[in-house]
Amino acid sequence: MNDMNGLSHKIYLELTPPGPGDSMSDQQRIAAALRAEWGEVKFPLPVLRCLYPLCTETDWHITVTLGWNGVQWVITRLEQGDTSASHYGLCADLGSTTLVMEMVDCRTGQVVGQASAYNHQIAFGEDILSRIFYSTGNAEKLAEIQKATTDTFCEVMAALEEQTGIPAEQCAAMTVAGNSAMIHFLIGMDAFCIFSSPYAVHADQPGFLWGRDLGIPLDGFVYCYPGKANYLGGDIISGMIATELPEHEELSVFLDIGTNGELVVGNREFLICGAGAAGPALEGGVVRTGMRAVKGAVSAITLSDGIFHLETIGNGTPKGICGSGIVDMIAELFLNGWLDVKGKFRPEASDQIRWLGEEYGVEYAPGLFFCQYDIDEFLKTKAAAYTMVEYVLTMAGISMDEIQRFYVAGAFGTHVNKESAVTIGLYPDIDRSRLISAGNSSLKGARRLLLDIDCLKKLPGILENMTYVQFGDVGDFLHIMVGATALPHTDIQRYPSVIKKLKDRGILL
Amino acid sequence: MNDMNGLSHKIYLELTPPGPGDSMSDQQRIAAALRAEWGEVKFPLPVLRCLYPLCTETDWHITVTLGWNGVQWVITRLEQGDTSASHYGLCADLGSTTLVMEMVDCRTGQVVGQASAYNHQIAFGEDILSRIFYSTGNAEKLAEIQKATTDTFCEVMAALEEQTGIPAEQCAAMTVAGNSAMIHFLIGMDAFCIFSSPYAVHADQPGFLWGRDLGIPLDGFVYCYPGKANYLGGDIISGMIATELPEHEELSVFLDIGTNGELVVGNREFLICGAGAAGPALEGGVVRTGMRAVKGAVSAITLSDGIFHLETIGNGTPKGICGSGIVDMIAELFLNGWLDVKGKFRPEASDQIRWLGEEYGVEYAPGLFFCQYDIDEFLKTKAAAYTMVEYVLTMAGISMDEIQRFYVAGAFGTHVNKESAVTIGLYPDIDRSRLISAGNSSLKGARRLLLDIDCLKKLPGILENMTYVQFGDVGDFLHIMVGATALPHTDIQRYPSVIKKLKDRGILL
Repeated sequence: MNDMNGLSHKIYLELTPPGPGDSMSDQQRIAAALRAEWGEVKFPLPVLRCLYPLCTETDWHITVTLGWNGVQWVITRLEQGDTSASHYGLCADLGSTTLVMEMVDCRTGQVVGQASAYNHQIAFGEDILSRIFYSTGNAEKLAEIQKATTDTFCEVMAALEEQTGIPAEQCAAMTVAGNSAMIHFLIGMDAFCIFSSPYAVHADQPGFLWGRDLGIPLDGFVYCYPGKANYLGGDIISGMIATELPEHEELSVFLDIGTNGELVVGNREFLICGAGAAGPALEGGVVRTGMRAVKGAVSAITLSDGIFHLETIGNGTPKGICGSGIVDMIAELFLNGWLDVKGKFRPEASDQIRWLGEEYGVEYAPGLFFCQYDIDEFLKTKAAAYTMVEYVLTMAGISMDEIQRFYVAGAFGTHVNKESAVTIGLYPDIDRSRLISAGNSSLKGARRLLLDIDCLKKLPGILENMTYVQFGDVGDFLHIMVGATALPHTDIQRYPSVIKKLKDRGILL
Repeated sequence: MNDMNGLSHKIYLELTPPGPGDSMSDQQRIAAALRAEWGEVKFPLPVLRCLYPLCTETDWHITVTLGWNGVQWVITRLEQGDTSASHYGLCADLGSTTLVMEMVDCRTGQVVGQASAYNHQIAFGEDILSRIFYSTGNAEKLAEIQKATTDTFCEVMAALEEQTGIPAEQCAAMTVAGNSAMIHFLIGMDAFCIFSSPYAVHADQPGFLWGRDLGIPLDGFVYCYPGKANYLGGDIISGMIATELPEHEELSVFLDIGTNGELVVGNREFLICGAGAAGPALEGGVVRTGMRAVKGAVSAITLSDGIFHLETIGNGTPKGICGSGIVDMIAELFLNGWLDVKGKFRPEASDQIRWLGEEYGVEYAPGLFFCQYDIDEFLKTKAAAYTMVEYVLTMAGISMDEIQRFYVAGAFGTHVNKESAVTIGLYPDIDRSRLISAGNSSLKGARRLLLDIDCLKKLPGILENMTYVQFGDVGDFLHIMVGATALPHTDIQRYPSVIKKLKDRGILL
């Protein structure tokens, strides 16, 4: 069975041992056997040192692991006998909160294990900015954060090893997708540049680095996806590879809603991208009873006849509300006429809308309130996300109708109810089949690259085609945003399906 | 002033710092400035980590050092300001006895310092075989020898630093030429293979390795010359580059007389090479009063009217005789008729030829005797060296007359008296202008490569063109050798100039 066309290969060789009249060196003996298919392979120092007695002990039945270093194949490991059937790689989505990793069988492409862990960087600050302030200008503290990052890798690799029984150290290669700050920290570079004008990062194309040099126990290369700009990092470029958006003729939107909000609009002809602070609110960050999508979080809501029907993660007692729950909540409140188009409670609509001293609110579960402030804050974020899309589309002279694929990446996109997202005007009112949850496209793109070296060839073109918009520099951004704070939008004609629903319910006449 | 076309370059850049509307990354800013001339340069981890604050602190006036790694240019160092005028490299001849190194100005090609030290490996055995037996099959002992080797490099680098005032660590690149055993030890590979059938070495093309990985304090690559075969190592290939023998149309012989004797015969069309145990004797090793060419060694001798006229190194009191002295001695004894064509003392020729209990001998200096045994042993070695040449010439169907250049490399070739070497039949009797002392061609080739990257392109062709003869496998070698043990040769017609001298002196009628 052959390997996939990935960043690593394992090749079993049965070579003729040196003998009378054949005194070719061990090195050339191996190089010659590989040359036709792999070109001039490189022998790093540790491999030179293990040629003997490894080759002779096994009578020259050896398995060579090759890793691509960006310009040539490098022998990253030599093993005795035929170990080519055991060929695994790792791919990682390095998020500021969580590191998610998969172990992949590089012969079949099958994921054999998945594990994740909280990013140990959290010890130096919950949010990225705190971590940056902690470490900037201080080499020792930066080294601490670098080590916290690789410690996280070690933890997840250990978990994968336990899960699969396959030593993670023996994986032949690793791909990592992460935002600019995460990659700066992984490499050990000061990340202050990312959030400070003129937003020129230190390195955006670290490429292939030895795992051991980074502190990741892997006899092979770690490849970090390149980034486009300070706020548009390798996780989004990885998403481009995962969705193949830059190869399609159809116009697409790619919206990644995580800690930050990142956007790419385009097709094979052009790509416009940008990023904005859209994330925390959508993840429940600004809602006072908001929480992450963990056990006890209300994740889905319907409201009928004045009664909230809740779904909680793990079917537990409701402890708070996560992103998808919030979207449902606002959509349902609106469709029941409890909120007006400005997102303000209409106390006359239900006696469940209670004055709580400073604002109106509803008690959606015992002791858990969802209030005007929560809605106002959330709608600002919703408006920011929508406006990013609208701004870029306008810039490109494209109407929302022309969008063939509207990808929403990240956990939010996976869990949110599409109808609700359209209802509140977060998603555009287009054919629902065009609204695509891209899942963890950062991880998917990392896996894809690990298994298909040709993805590397696509990257320069993607980066070059991308036009990056600093929304902070856009003067009329806030102006446009005002229209998008309404439910679903000040220009309600953009949302015919919402009009229909409201009419069906008699809310709109 | 530009650098030479070597393995390293220092480029001073004055770049525009990032600013409004220009948020290109530090990495791309540097890469873009280098791309046109140097292609896609590689940023290793330590360089990524030092981009900030190095670049900003100096307002983007920086000096980039590029080192060639065999396939692309790598940034090996970043410095603030313009340091391009200080661009040095190191080249080394790693001998089993001595490490000789030069520090070279890579802008001018000028040698700014030369230093040498005894190879610390000597602690594990005077001769290579002892060191191999000490270390074979034992990783710890091999590591000791590896460290002894790099310690020697450190010692010589320190000496160069003291001599020149230039920090050797800041040298941009290093080239090393050494025989197969030395390169195995430098890298840390078991060297038993070199002396044991089927003589397949472990690695003959180590190529470019990071100095720090080897234990050599250098922020750049160390390039080891490739070898052709177990007994024909990188020192000889380096000699090929130094002499340009493989580029000449004229037929040449290259004979390196050191601890071993190595030979290359050929021109741009073909190269035949081989090696034999020719060395120790010629360096004074088998002569009982023999010594290395150090102070007090008799280095030149004439004998007239029964009186020895001696030159000693450093004009000291004679303590022994070195290689060039021995050659003079035998030549003079022969030309005075004190030795016959078989190299045997003719006691009737002079009463200075004394019976010393077991053999005849002469007292060339107070208490220092040169005896029959010394002559017999030396002539065997002389015969071996001559026979190597003769054998290969015969194999190639070339007569000695066709040889346009007869290079003799190494200290022996530098110091020996050509006439004497012809007289005893070590050198062929050809026009003296064709007898060329190549000096330390191993070191010269290393320097040349350091300063001219195009030399690398010549190497695959040289190695491929070379036919290696294992003299040990040649059945009639000893038979041919017998003729060459005579003075100057059994077939004296090969030595017309010697016939003439003997006739002039009335020794031959």
